[in-house]
Amino acid sequence: MSTKDGPPFVAINFIECNQEYVERFEMLFSSRAHAIDRMPGFLGMEVLKCTERDKPYLVVSRWKDEESFQAWVGSPEFHEGHKRAFEDLRAAKARGEETPMKSDFRTYTVLTD
Amino acid sequence: MSTKDGPPFVAINFIECNQEYVERFEMLFSSRAHAIDRMPGFLGMEVLKCTERDKPYLVVSRWKDEESFQAWVGSPEFHEGHKRAFEDLRAAKARGEETPMKSDFRTYTVLTD
Repeated sequence: MSTKDGPPFVAINFIECNQEYVERFEMLFSSRAHAIDRMPGFLGMEVLKCTERDKPYLVVSRWKDEESFQAWVGSPEFHEGHKRAFEDLRAAKARGEETPMKSDFRTYTVLTD
Repeated sequence: MSTKDGPPFVAINFIECNQEYVERFEMLFSSRAHAIDRMPGFLGMEVLKCTERDKPYLVVSRWKDEESFQAWVGSPEFHEGHKRAFEDLRAAKARGEETPMKSDFRTYTVLTD
């Protein structure tokens, strides 16, 4: 799974989703904006759903290198891609509700394949 | 990253490694037996190393379907592939030491890409 440019840089967002938000969460991804796809150095992404209930989803994106990934974070495409999710989080907060999802973000290098 | 046969089945072993075992752990993977590569339905694997210290490694394997993955678990290839790691765990136990690594195993379907 490496490219001729060397092993990719991998970013994973571990997202814990409230049960009542799961359907919307999955819909947001299945109709995603594809804004990230326009970023230079973007190699692909996948959303992994655990076969056990109530375990975090893994949103995995692959990049040519760390610089490509860093250029995405904070870019207009990043905000475009997260627009609906960010609105959901803001709306929940405005209603004084618990946040519908929590995320834990980590980045990785490929040690070996 | 999907194939013509549909989205893959993904297995991830989250491995917490004691600091003094990290070098050996990485060596075991960089010189791995490649026994898993012979399994029907095996699509590939990657070992992901977190860019932060003391976070779990992710050993990610991709399979044509869940059946291919299940056939691997408990197969002679599974035992061949884990031989040196299992010996290390047994040896630590025999010496009355803490286990040099702990793993948390989960399986995933690909929700979307």
